[in-house]
Amino acid sequence: MTALEAPTTGTAREDVPTGDLAPDLRWWAAANYLTAAQIYLRANPLLREPLRPEQIKPRLLGHWGTSPGLTMLYALLNRLIRRTGQEVLLVTGPGHGGPAVLAGAYLDGTYSEVHPGVSQDLAGLTRLVRQFSTPGGVSSHAGPHIPGGIHEGGELGYALLHAAGAAFDDPDLLVACVVGDGEAETGPLAASWRLPAFLDPRRDGAVLPVLHVNGYKISGPTVLGRSSDEDVCGYLRSQGWDPVVVAGDDPPRVFADLDAALADAYARIRAIQDAARSGRAQDTPRWPAVVLRTPKGWTGPHTVDGVPVEGTFRAHQVPLAGVRENPEHLAQLEAWLRSYRPEDCFDADGRLVPELAALTPRDDLRISASPRAGGPHYRVRPLPLPDLADHALAVPSPGVVQHETTRPLGTYLRDLFVRTARADGGGDFRLFSPDETNSNRLGAVFEVTERVTSLPVLPGDEALGPHGRVMEVLSEHLCEGWLEGYTLTGRHGLFATYEAFAMVSASMVVQHAKWLQQSVLEPGRPPVPSLNVLLTSTTWRNDHNGFSHQGPGLIDTVAPLSPDVTRIWFPPDANTTLVVAEECLRSRNRVNLVVVDKQRHLQFLDLEQARTLVSAGGAVWEWAGTEEPDRARTDSPDVVLAAIGDVPTMEVLAAAQLMREHVPHLRVRVVDVVDLLGLLPPGEHPAAFSPERFADLFTDTADVVVAFHGHPRAIHPLLHGRPDVDRFHVRGFTEHGTTTTPFDMVVLNRMSRYDLVLEALRRSRRVPEGGDGLARLCHEQLGRHREHVVEALEDLPEVRDWTWSSDRS
Amino acid sequence: MTALEAPTTGTAREDVPTGDLAPDLRWWAAANYLTAAQIYLRANPLLREPLRPEQIKPRLLGHWGTSPGLTMLYALLNRLIRRTGQEVLLVTGPGHGGPAVLAGAYLDGTYSEVHPGVSQDLAGLTRLVRQFSTPGGVSSHAGPHIPGGIHEGGELGYALLHAAGAAFDDPDLLVACVVGDGEAETGPLAASWRLPAFLDPRRDGAVLPVLHVNGYKISGPTVLGRSSDEDVCGYLRSQGWDPVVVAGDDPPRVFADLDAALADAYARIRAIQDAARSGRAQDTPRWPAVVLRTPKGWTGPHTVDGVPVEGTFRAHQVPLAGVRENPEHLAQLEAWLRSYRPEDCFDADGRLVPELAALTPRDDLRISASPRAGGPHYRVRPLPLPDLADHALAVPSPGVVQHETTRPLGTYLRDLFVRTARADGGGDFRLFSPDETNSNRLGAVFEVTERVTSLPVLPGDEALGPHGRVMEVLSEHLCEGWLEGYTLTGRHGLFATYEAFAMVSASMVVQHAKWLQQSVLEPGRPPVPSLNVLLTSTTWRNDHNGFSHQGPGLIDTVAPLSPDVTRIWFPPDANTTLVVAEECLRSRNRVNLVVVDKQRHLQFLDLEQARTLVSAGGAVWEWAGTEEPDRARTDSPDVVLAAIGDVPTMEVLAAAQLMREHVPHLRVRVVDVVDLLGLLPPGEHPAAFSPERFADLFTDTADVVVAFHGHPRAIHPLLHGRPDVDRFHVRGFTEHGTTTTPFDMVVLNRMSRYDLVLEALRRSRRVPEGGDGLARLCHEQLGRHREHVVEALEDLPEVRDWTWSSDRS
Repeated sequence: MTALEAPTTGTAREDVPTGDLAPDLRWWAAANYLTAAQIYLRANPLLREPLRPEQIKPRLLGHWGTSPGLTMLYALLNRLIRRTGQEVLLVTGPGHGGPAVLAGAYLDGTYSEVHPGVSQDLAGLTRLVRQFSTPGGVSSHAGPHIPGGIHEGGELGYALLHAAGAAFDDPDLLVACVVGDGEAETGPLAASWRLPAFLDPRRDGAVLPVLHVNGYKISGPTVLGRSSDEDVCGYLRSQGWDPVVVAGDDPPRVFADLDAALADAYARIRAIQDAARSGRAQDTPRWPAVVLRTPKGWTGPHTVDGVPVEGTFRAHQVPLAGVRENPEHLAQLEAWLRSYRPEDCFDADGRLVPELAALTPRDDLRISASPRAGGPHYRVRPLPLPDLADHALAVPSPGVVQHETTRPLGTYLRDLFVRTARADGGGDFRLFSPDETNSNRLGAVFEVTERVTSLPVLPGDEALGPHGRVMEVLSEHLCEGWLEGYTLTGRHGLFATYEAFAMVSASMVVQHAKWLQQSVLEPGRPPVPSLNVLLTSTTWRNDHNGFSHQGPGLIDTVAPLSPDVTRIWFPPDANTTLVVAEECLRSRNRVNLVVVDKQRHLQFLDLEQARTLVSAGGAVWEWAGTEEPDRARTDSPDVVLAAIGDVPTMEVLAAAQLMREHVPHLRVRVVDVVDLLGLLPPGEHPAAFSPERFADLFTDTADVVVAFHGHPRAIHPLLHGRPDVDRFHVRGFTEHGTTTTPFDMVVLNRMSRYDLVLEALRRSRRVPEGGDGLARLCHEQLGRHREHVVEALEDLPEVRDWTWSSDRS
Repeated sequence: MTALEAPTTGTAREDVPTGDLAPDLRWWAAANYLTAAQIYLRANPLLREPLRPEQIKPRLLGHWGTSPGLTMLYALLNRLIRRTGQEVLLVTGPGHGGPAVLAGAYLDGTYSEVHPGVSQDLAGLTRLVRQFSTPGGVSSHAGPHIPGGIHEGGELGYALLHAAGAAFDDPDLLVACVVGDGEAETGPLAASWRLPAFLDPRRDGAVLPVLHVNGYKISGPTVLGRSSDEDVCGYLRSQGWDPVVVAGDDPPRVFADLDAALADAYARIRAIQDAARSGRAQDTPRWPAVVLRTPKGWTGPHTVDGVPVEGTFRAHQVPLAGVRENPEHLAQLEAWLRSYRPEDCFDADGRLVPELAALTPRDDLRISASPRAGGPHYRVRPLPLPDLADHALAVPSPGVVQHETTRPLGTYLRDLFVRTARADGGGDFRLFSPDETNSNRLGAVFEVTERVTSLPVLPGDEALGPHGRVMEVLSEHLCEGWLEGYTLTGRHGLFATYEAFAMVSASMVVQHAKWLQQSVLEPGRPPVPSLNVLLTSTTWRNDHNGFSHQGPGLIDTVAPLSPDVTRIWFPPDANTTLVVAEECLRSRNRVNLVVVDKQRHLQFLDLEQARTLVSAGGAVWEWAGTEEPDRARTDSPDVVLAAIGDVPTMEVLAAAQLMREHVPHLRVRVVDVVDLLGLLPPGEHPAAFSPERFADLFTDTADVVVAFHGHPRAIHPLLHGRPDVDRFHVRGFTEHGTTTTPFDMVVLNRMSRYDLVLEALRRSRRVPEGGDGLARLCHEQLGRHREHVVEALEDLPEVRDWTWSSDRS
């Protein structure tokens, strides 16, 4: 026993008769057997002969400690499914228990369907145990290779978020979610217990958390493991759950208690849903939850070398470590494995015996065949996207109209909400944001939907209600994790957030990219909608909020991830943002980062021009440059000005205008890049510009002054491998910030139009007539700027009110 | 009223007589006045004349909504301090209430001491209001510019972590910590409520959380704002707190209730501490906490344009927005400001009237003068560092001895724990880790200290107890945030964690770097000990755990941050790790990232050699290369092999050995770099190698094949600006990973010795005799590798058992 108190029996409040559990206990034994066999064996998978050292893997991996709890839940969920026909998705937070989940998928038959080589016979079993945690085989954690799962559980903290995302808008689904007591110490997990405040019993599915308290992490106890039942239950109850404790170390007893607890929880869930769906009034419901206290490494070796193991931290990973070298350990392992009586579980051919096979639910109801997780009947409905033309801004000429760049996206998303709405209030598109939908100028969505809350709505609240599909919570972790779960189960969404604070959930983006990268290679993993992250309220335009709100770090995080799944977009204006949004919402299996500010900005392109730019990834803006149009472009310019991002585009154009005016004979080219990873050399990314296309933009020899939205040095790793990269001179955010004006931000970081002109003059192939005068003007303006801004508390009028004009002086 | 229920009066359980509160209420009015004045005014700070539009700032920033709660707490903490002489540090989670905290520091007199220009008179008041949130002035958020604070509260979530870090090992300190109800929705904050499980009443100070529920975020309600008192209190109670609710909207009433609640909480804290310090047995204590429900934007405009503002989300930021243009708003602002009766608060010279000035505690007891936060009596004790020689490994010759690289650091830290131990169990050094101290081979520390827990300790637990100074909790956020608070208050520590999961708290590292970068420039901010982050269990040696555990992303996050505060270290072996650790523990105001694996690795340098390497940042390892020693080095090599990191060093040396053996006449140079940011061009970083030093390492012309621990492209941004950077060819982690063998990891990512040799042969200045044969050998070995590893489940013996030998064939 790991718990502090004597074992508590299940206290399920309804006495649901659940019948004979003996077969389920045997199925559990079979699953535990296969779990331990995967960890230890490389041959002799059913112990048909005495175990020999060379049949043991040279390196023992996989976590035994959590596994018996996972297999027990699997067994009893199967039972619940058989009894009720309920569709169940299982999310296992303790992903280190990968062999346990894999054992379940194998016993279901699903694994063999997806991986025919691992068949339901002795040869397949040999492959099953041999492949586990070996080079060329399968990973020790849960992952995309195990059918039925949407969650890896390597980096801990996101189980309940993924479970919630899967349940949203899926009224027929029950998501059972195992939360480990180690994972429960993480921040994201702790915050995710607030789910009941955001779950709509009418049109969402249910989430049933099973908080698995087995008391220990790697080498010490968990906080919850040392907390009383009263405190653990009080913790859950205060956040909208109605927990029941199941505890003990006697398998039949715990089995019966957990079975009853699941049956009772299921009945309570259905009652909540039935009341909501039949329109009966009710208070905010308290959702059932299970607190399961069982020993760590349950049913494994009780003591090893005289030291207690079962029920202690020593059972966390591999309870017997010296098996190959130590005959006693080997004998103990063999006895342990044989204690599950594999000969009663598998027939002569190595097939699961019929009595146990009969316990597997049918077809799609198998946990490992869930259509939500890519099972055979998985379907993604393409979004019924609105026509961009209905939302595009009229931009009759570039650089004159001002508009809040993200506002047209708001009306586009509003129409998308309408087109995806179901009669019950659900749909297959959601917007996630840390309380910033209005702030991000996407507020038009509130004309047709609301922010979700299951808590009381008061007079004076705006756009707030139980059936909305806008998720606002002040946690980037929750927004990101919910969206991940939502897209991994085939639905679509957008996470809109402040650029700097997107770093809060950066590690989740990394882990999601890893999942997608691996899943692309897995048979039986159809493509899922992309993870779309909109970074608005950007670095350059958090001039008001100050330095803590200024940071383009997520670009640095995403750029080095696998090119198979990453895209980073820098639309310069509103219409380009619309086109990029459409591209992202249509795409699959990607992490799309879209970086564009929400404030009023100059607009440059009409819709058709925006489409052309996005499909090319980058373009020469001939109207802005001063090359002679009749010359072959590659040799033409004296210097290239390139912009990546909205504020950079404005500064580059203003610089180009100054040069057009003051050094009109210098051949300046202006380039705008929207698809950042196009800069990577061919072969390094699917979006990479071909050598010809790259030369067409940047030439092979001219110096290029780049204004970039992010950290300037972030451009150089992308360019390496392109011709003569020393000629690229990048300005960007060099971590200089404070509360100031927009233009002061670009001055502080030396990316202002004047800085760009000075750099371009320095780098130009020719010393132009008028260059000295222009340089002097730039220095003067930079000097005036500081004085003016401190005095007037606003930017120089010629900067603040600047618009594009193609007149030459 | 924002709360759901009718106002609850304070339910403090002891009736502490606290006397006349009228002066404190007037002080509160003065602080609220200055808060609003900072937000709105650029002149006429005491309204000595009627308010005119041009006296209003052109852009209105700063958050009024949270501010009156902050000032009220400030007023009543002052009262508590006066009464008890208690030393108090105030951590304000809602950092957007910067003007409120600044108002407190100004009224204390401290701000004028640090910034003499902002004096205690009318001229100073004019500067105070004018500087706020303006270019060249001060930021709208709390930050290093406000004396007495250690917390910015721009990116939300870390208030209670910083408070806890400040309290550890500081028995005389009370940290009052305001937690906003928006912030309470974040993951890190949610997890940080578990503090009572880690706080030792004997040798730690106390943390008094004030959960400020004012009901709204930017545009919607908070979860806690819509939760009942019962649920909010149940939530806190279940995590080790003993909360009391103070709620209402009638200032004198709420003042009295909060005053009583603080007095009662203080008495209970002292009782807990007295019991612990006098050795009286007690259960795990429940620490007092205050739940404060007051209206958002309290005492501000009640309605604006007929719409309710006070007590709604509309009071979150600036309750009156159109003041310059709208005469009604201007009049309403003036009336609002005058309602605080500034003429009663400040005398004719603009000085706080004596009755109110008398409310400020004396000297160091002023909240804003806290010695913990850099106040006049701030002191950092340099660590009594052990002698490295006592812990260094004997390395008689390079590349032969194998050792777990971090294990000597464990004994070094053990001795450091001994040297920093106080009689009460406290000290000024702590180790923070997500349950991985043993796993990271630092377990020697448990010979002299323990993991901290305030929860029950059971038989069989190892190195666990209430007075330890090793903090293990399965949350990178908690480890990082606690360490931040600990170092910001002048103590020292180390956060040791898995490399991949260090990304979990990446945003905190970014924000901490921003704090340090700003604080360097602030008068009155003495240097603080560095934030030392040890990334062990690295990407390359998580071959067992699989792809989710493989990720060097934190390097990409830290490298672009301000060069004033960043260092990234790659010690190749154990002795270099010791030297780097010493350097980090001695340093101030830095973020030190140290990347080195914990597993058994070849050792290369003795202690003296390690010191030489670290002080140079990088060195040519002449013993490993095949240059003729008598030639000037700059022109000598045909190709350079450079290593950055431990596994890269081994692969580079193995590659060099192959070349020495098979192409002995090729002049190969081997370089090892330990101080990554030295690669940056001069002027870009204080650690940057001079041009001469850079040429000395890499020449100006030879091709350089680099094996790098992180993402390979991360090297190019550092090199840009160095001569001819196209000649650098970097191998590193290209996001290929799985559960496999160590050598398979370097093969998958094309950084193996064979890949390096092939690249070096391709890039070499000369085609060497024997080159074809060596290339063939490398291809053969790469082919054999895959076959062998899948068959044998371990690496090729010649790779696994490889050691350095300088014999030529």
